[in-house]
Amino acid sequence: LRTLKLTLAYDGTRFVGWQRQAEGLSIQGLIEDALAPLAGGRVTVHGAGRTDAGVHAMGQVASVQIACAHDLETLGRALNAQLPPDVRVLGVDEAAPDFHARFSARSKHYRYQIDRAPIADPFRRAWAWHVPDALDVDAMAEAAHLLVGTHDFAVFQSAGTSVSETVRTITRSGITAGDVLVYDVVGTGFLRHMVRAIVGTLVEVGRGRRRPASMGWLLEEGTRADAGRTAPPQGLFLVRVDYD
Amino acid sequence: LRTLKLTLAYDGTRFVGWQRQAEGLSIQGLIEDALAPLAGGRVTVHGAGRTDAGVHAMGQVASVQIACAHDLETLGRALNAQLPPDVRVLGVDEAAPDFHARFSARSKHYRYQIDRAPIADPFRRAWAWHVPDALDVDAMAEAAHLLVGTHDFAVFQSAGTSVSETVRTITRSGITAGDVLVYDVVGTGFLRHMVRAIVGTLVEVGRGRRRPASMGWLLEEGTRADAGRTAPPQGLFLVRVDYD
Repeated sequence: LRTLKLTLAYDGTRFVGWQRQAEGLSIQGLIEDALAPLAGGRVTVHGAGRTDAGVHAMGQVASVQIACAHDLETLGRALNAQLPPDVRVLGVDEAAPDFHARFSARSKHYRYQIDRAPIADPFRRAWAWHVPDALDVDAMAEAAHLLVGTHDFAVFQSAGTSVSETVRTITRSGITAGDVLVYDVVGTGFLRHMVRAIVGTLVEVGRGRRRPASMGWLLEEGTRADAGRTAPPQGLFLVRVDYD
Repeated sequence: LRTLKLTLAYDGTRFVGWQRQAEGLSIQGLIEDALAPLAGGRVTVHGAGRTDAGVHAMGQVASVQIACAHDLETLGRALNAQLPPDVRVLGVDEAAPDFHARFSARSKHYRYQIDRAPIADPFRRAWAWHVPDALDVDAMAEAAHLLVGTHDFAVFQSAGTSVSETVRTITRSGITAGDVLVYDVVGTGFLRHMVRAIVGTLVEVGRGRRRPASMGWLLEEGTRADAGRTAPPQGLFLVRVDYD
């Protein structure tokens, strides 16, 4: 068996998310189905990040163990020939036998886009959250910066889900202003809906409904209901996953 | 009756084009239907450029004569509330009684985008033509520049259509290189499929299949079959229309 590392880009608009589900099209399902004829049977593909319905990826990484003799370039071309145009294999690499896209990941980079135009740009409606209100971008940047470090991020975890360990390390958390406001966050791992809950909270800071300094209090003492609402999925991109 | 000038942006992907047709959704039809309740009856809207199926607009202009007392801002909001998110009214202005979006236009700016990435970017597939081949961009720029001036552009007119007067003046025709190659063209008017036929010809220059200097010969002596094939619609945008 060979272990392969696939790098993928996809427009998440019409999918139920990364993970294969009983109903609807998933990225994982499409990749597994495209690999099956090359592998001579069903295979299981592991993704670095289980992106939700409507969330996009510029650089998702997936791993798979597969018995096939094709060279890497042929594999990439064969996969892209079978996949729909909104899912593309950007690269296929040989990986160490114990490589696992999720468990081996050292850090992930997510990006969230906010369209600030007074009238929503029709060309950005599938890639951004439209927030036409006046936003205090400096306050948002200050609040975003307070997330850098090792913290318990349980306050930004989706209600109804729970993992036992909610401490994560964020190494970058910054706002870039422009006609599209961009939030970039890099960290060792992310809880379910964490980036979207952070963005929903940052937008409330931008609207003047909470102070930047309240981020510290949220992390230390807040519960999910104290943080902002989960921002919609179409603004979110998994940009890149890093490995040792 | 008031004469209004509407500035519009739309993602042309799912439409049959600007013009109302017997079957399918058109931009003109949507705008007319959205105006009807405000005007208290059916109105006819004229567009500056009759964009084809799949062609986009960042700054289409339309004119309409309408009997209604609403202020301009209210009209814009009411229209956007009724239109789908892939069609947006960017502005509503009062115009002179004889203003006509098409006949009063002094010049139009079209843009065509070519995605040069080896693997088609899933986020650009609806806004660009994917041409992964090596392209000689300097040769394309040289050929593009030869179109500036007043010429008979009949060679770039779609087969099966004919207007009696095929002389047009192009004031700008240039290539901007990047991971997306952008062709910008500004002129007094454009024949049917003219920009897409020019782009198809420029790409053949880029591939080394014709010389830049052949553009002069094409304009003077060529017939439609001598020029390149019509480039696909999804790369084309009507950027802006200028009036005196």
